[in-house]
Amino acid sequence: MADSLALPRGFRFGAASCGLKRSGAPDLALVVADELVAAAAAFTSNRVQAAPVLVSIEHVRRSGGRMRAIVVNSGNANCCTGKAGLAAARLMAKALAAKLDCRPEEVFVCSTGVIGVPLRVEKIVAGIPGLLPALGSGPEAFASLARGILTTDTRPKTASASLRIGGLPVRIAGCTKGAGMIAPQFHMPAATMLAFLLTDAAVTPAVLRRALGAVVGPTFNSITVDGDTSTNDTVALFASGASGARIGNERSAGYRHFVRALQRVCHSLALQIVADGEGARHVIEIDVRGAPNERGAATVARTIAHSPLVKTALAGADPNWGRILAAAGRSGVAFDPERAAITLAGVPVFRRGRPLPFDEKSVHERMEKQQYSMCVDLGAGRGRARVWTCELSEGYVRINADYRT
Amino acid sequence: MADSLALPRGFRFGAASCGLKRSGAPDLALVVADELVAAAAAFTSNRVQAAPVLVSIEHVRRSGGRMRAIVVNSGNANCCTGKAGLAAARLMAKALAAKLDCRPEEVFVCSTGVIGVPLRVEKIVAGIPGLLPALGSGPEAFASLARGILTTDTRPKTASASLRIGGLPVRIAGCTKGAGMIAPQFHMPAATMLAFLLTDAAVTPAVLRRALGAVVGPTFNSITVDGDTSTNDTVALFASGASGARIGNERSAGYRHFVRALQRVCHSLALQIVADGEGARHVIEIDVRGAPNERGAATVARTIAHSPLVKTALAGADPNWGRILAAAGRSGVAFDPERAAITLAGVPVFRRGRPLPFDEKSVHERMEKQQYSMCVDLGAGRGRARVWTCELSEGYVRINADYRT
Repeated sequence: MADSLALPRGFRFGAASCGLKRSGAPDLALVVADELVAAAAAFTSNRVQAAPVLVSIEHVRRSGGRMRAIVVNSGNANCCTGKAGLAAARLMAKALAAKLDCRPEEVFVCSTGVIGVPLRVEKIVAGIPGLLPALGSGPEAFASLARGILTTDTRPKTASASLRIGGLPVRIAGCTKGAGMIAPQFHMPAATMLAFLLTDAAVTPAVLRRALGAVVGPTFNSITVDGDTSTNDTVALFASGASGARIGNERSAGYRHFVRALQRVCHSLALQIVADGEGARHVIEIDVRGAPNERGAATVARTIAHSPLVKTALAGADPNWGRILAAAGRSGVAFDPERAAITLAGVPVFRRGRPLPFDEKSVHERMEKQQYSMCVDLGAGRGRARVWTCELSEGYVRINADYRT
Repeated sequence: MADSLALPRGFRFGAASCGLKRSGAPDLALVVADELVAAAAAFTSNRVQAAPVLVSIEHVRRSGGRMRAIVVNSGNANCCTGKAGLAAARLMAKALAAKLDCRPEEVFVCSTGVIGVPLRVEKIVAGIPGLLPALGSGPEAFASLARGILTTDTRPKTASASLRIGGLPVRIAGCTKGAGMIAPQFHMPAATMLAFLLTDAAVTPAVLRRALGAVVGPTFNSITVDGDTSTNDTVALFASGASGARIGNERSAGYRHFVRALQRVCHSLALQIVADGEGARHVIEIDVRGAPNERGAATVARTIAHSPLVKTALAGADPNWGRILAAAGRSGVAFDPERAAITLAGVPVFRRGRPLPFDEKSVHERMEKQQYSMCVDLGAGRGRARVWTCELSEGYVRINADYRT
């Protein structure tokens, strides 16, 4: 719940409707820091990158990671929109910068929504002056930000953490969006998954970048709804320093403490995305162990998570371990099925090349739960990886087959 | 239609019910050559290989590619069934060999159906003696074979070709099955896709193997229903020589002629599988051009074919080129979207980084056709690959979510 979040100091935020969404739902969101703050970001690794991604990559670089604000629109991804799209993304930054009396490259730009439709940027430009004075620093304002970035999501997604560094209280809060086209593959200066992370820790841009890089892998990069990595995926992390608590370099206790808390926040946000996956009722942890190495474990986990046959079995809460094993088998990773084992929702169902007797009805009931694990042990080494995914339901097909026509 | 097929001489075939399928549908099929004939086969590349796959690999090797018969059961895949499963597969071969007075390794064994359930091989053994005298060499017998190997398929799939080599008539006929778990990745001595190809050409096992290897790539390995490569995928090609027409080595005109005809048969069978894909109404050719190389083109084509967002758009006949471009972009293959182009069902919809104006309703109508193409030109080289796939419909989810529970 937004009202129990630990909100960092030094920021104001909020959202409004500027007329991009026909529904009249909020579609323009802002984060404004009181002054220039440390900024780090990760962007989609898709070869097709939306205009705001290209512009934000450039702005993070040109500003040296010292930024002032984030402007986000939902309802239009500003992707595959050519030179006009690039100009529109630049104009979003420029319009906000003019109002804040900062440089355009100190503004981070994000868009999410439909691809290939020209962005009516004039609506955004016209909406900014009215929204700025309405920004706030409290729970309601943060909830407004969290709602303003949504597209096909059914609910806002927020998380926060509090910690003490050097005796001083530090807060980390984040919000995220994303329901379909979710399989983020970030590289540092890389769905449409958007996440905005704010903290009042005092930290240099270089260390902030390192911290974000450390947490993206096991959190946002470890979830998948449908395997489709978006053209707009962006995570931004801004640190105001308003707590006065200094995070040292990567070898300091404070840094490790900060990274653990940041990872908790990102993990919660990432799982909320999966839980809100299009047509999804379940969050399933796929825990692959005993792979030849970590990379192999991740490949097997993703192959299982993306298998339509596994995902439809999960939709039916069907303990069909044969499909899980077959998906692992086609992953390209070397293992011997005679040494493999599968546990489904806590129940061993397969070991050493053979099915184990189990009560189908009882496992079926466990698989009706909102959240559960499957563990696949390949018996081929020490590599381990975890991925979180949801089922493939008729609802997913309905939502995506009817998207535009 | 089976009654217009060009059936090769030198074989008898047919099927019957031996009691594996509760429905009473035919579940035991045989192909028996009049004498030892040249045989070649390709098997699944899945690390998890069913017992009949392991046994048939061994039999092809031990027989030196001189075999007598094929025994196939449907209704049970005999996969993940341990030592008992291996013994059952061997017993299938042994029981048929005893009746034919040949060696067990001269019998090719296949199974398809549910994974992880012990095969009641005694039913097969009991069924063989009754089926043998009922085999025939005409269209009805071939149609019976084609029906006997089916599982979730809605219809039998057959194709044939006639050609002349050295003035003599040669026939190639094949049947196949497979509707879900279809993304064959054969390697030579590698869906549950089964295909049985029979010819009366006279050809050595080595040249036959080469011919099968040449056609599997652009046909069975270029179709995908759901990306799930089965544990049992098998293609077998038997050549009786009964036509008297000798195929020379790989450099001969006869060989090239034979391979072209074999490829036509396999292409037809492969596309029939896609057309009968679970829940599918459409066969879509994905033609990727302008990739850095052929391998890159194949990667892009498969990524598009497996994208749930593309496949659901195809289900809705939605000309959503943005999803196609985004799938290409996440494939890992290098290209510049500013040089890319997409044509959907014959209509250019995207060129040089930008959408082209097109009549959505008219493209939607073209995408309602049973068969159409999409062409993606990456503008990054000369690599080309084609893949055939079907949509992801609510029907696919319904069929697979309800498979067992």
